[in-house]
Amino acid sequence: MESLKNKILHEGKAIGSEIIKVDGFVNHQIDVKFMEEMGQELARRFAKKPIDKILTVESSGIAIACLTAPYLDYPPVVFAKKKVPNTLQGEFYHSQAKSFTKGTTSELVVARSFLAKGEGVLILDDFLAHGQASLALADIVEQAGAHVVGIGIVIEKAFQGGRAKLEQRGLSVESLAIIEEIRDGQVRFR
Amino acid sequence: MESLKNKILHEGKAIGSEIIKVDGFVNHQIDVKFMEEMGQELARRFAKKPIDKILTVESSGIAIACLTAPYLDYPPVVFAKKKVPNTLQGEFYHSQAKSFTKGTTSELVVARSFLAKGEGVLILDDFLAHGQASLALADIVEQAGAHVVGIGIVIEKAFQGGRAKLEQRGLSVESLAIIEEIRDGQVRFR
Repeated sequence: MESLKNKILHEGKAIGSEIIKVDGFVNHQIDVKFMEEMGQELARRFAKKPIDKILTVESSGIAIACLTAPYLDYPPVVFAKKKVPNTLQGEFYHSQAKSFTKGTTSELVVARSFLAKGEGVLILDDFLAHGQASLALADIVEQAGAHVVGIGIVIEKAFQGGRAKLEQRGLSVESLAIIEEIRDGQVRFR
Repeated sequence: MESLKNKILHEGKAIGSEIIKVDGFVNHQIDVKFMEEMGQELARRFAKKPIDKILTVESSGIAIACLTAPYLDYPPVVFAKKKVPNTLQGEFYHSQAKSFTKGTTSELVVARSFLAKGEGVLILDDFLAHGQASLALADIVEQAGAHVVGIGIVIEKAFQGGRAKLEQRGLSVESLAIIEEIRDGQVRFR
């Protein structure tokens, strides 16, 4: 998506060789109009799939999930939580996701009542890096007896290898921008 | 907002005397179409105010903030984070918010670059209980030299007294549903 690549080049900040900071429009401040355009494009790429639910993870996946849903005829959006709050009683699916950026491992949880056997689930997230979050979400979908119809990503950091891990599990990935390399403050797209 | 009150009565679960669980359409699974209707109503109530930014807090405020923005001509949405991730470098405003529900205190942070002196800021959140999150956000807005034009809430639990604390500070609050009491599994609205 050319407009996204341009926005990353103009508003993103490359840090070291691994981080592209897009806090200004994706994951701290949100450009809602632009997020709608990205949601529309993600929806176009998955339009032929039978989608019963959109699944993402808090916090930074919530915006793109909510702004994609209108273009897919409003499937419910479910976001996995990173711990069990005390209002989330009852049974839940859970899976672990390691964040290489933060150096932490999160327990992702989804209440069982929000994923049902046989459902087609579109996984959406803002970033694909090492693939840990998407793998954990796919694991949760499988625990529910549902199936992943695809994984839609805003920004993929190809050099961190997440796509290969997902494709090895038979999951198809669509990314709006694929970064091949970050070096000397410069971003190179595929 | 009658449709919200009905949805709370039909889909919410009252727990004890303090908790109304709306995980099915607000803060775990999201009914995006209904959230758009609530966003439109919140926008209507603040339409005459000069709004430069919408400020909320992760995670459960993000959906209502992003789905209200289109009806206010797309001001940027900023969400306060609950800790400092290592990609959030540089200076930031911070304030503490105690969660009575979770029994924890969070440090809320907003990068300085996303709030500017003189801006009008609309604070939005899914719940108003003791008012701690809204007070912390208002504190951050004041640190930035900006001003709060209003506070918009999806569900207010009036018996926990948050509104009084906010109004004492001169802040005006609009809530789509105001719960007066939760007792014996029943919700009574104002």
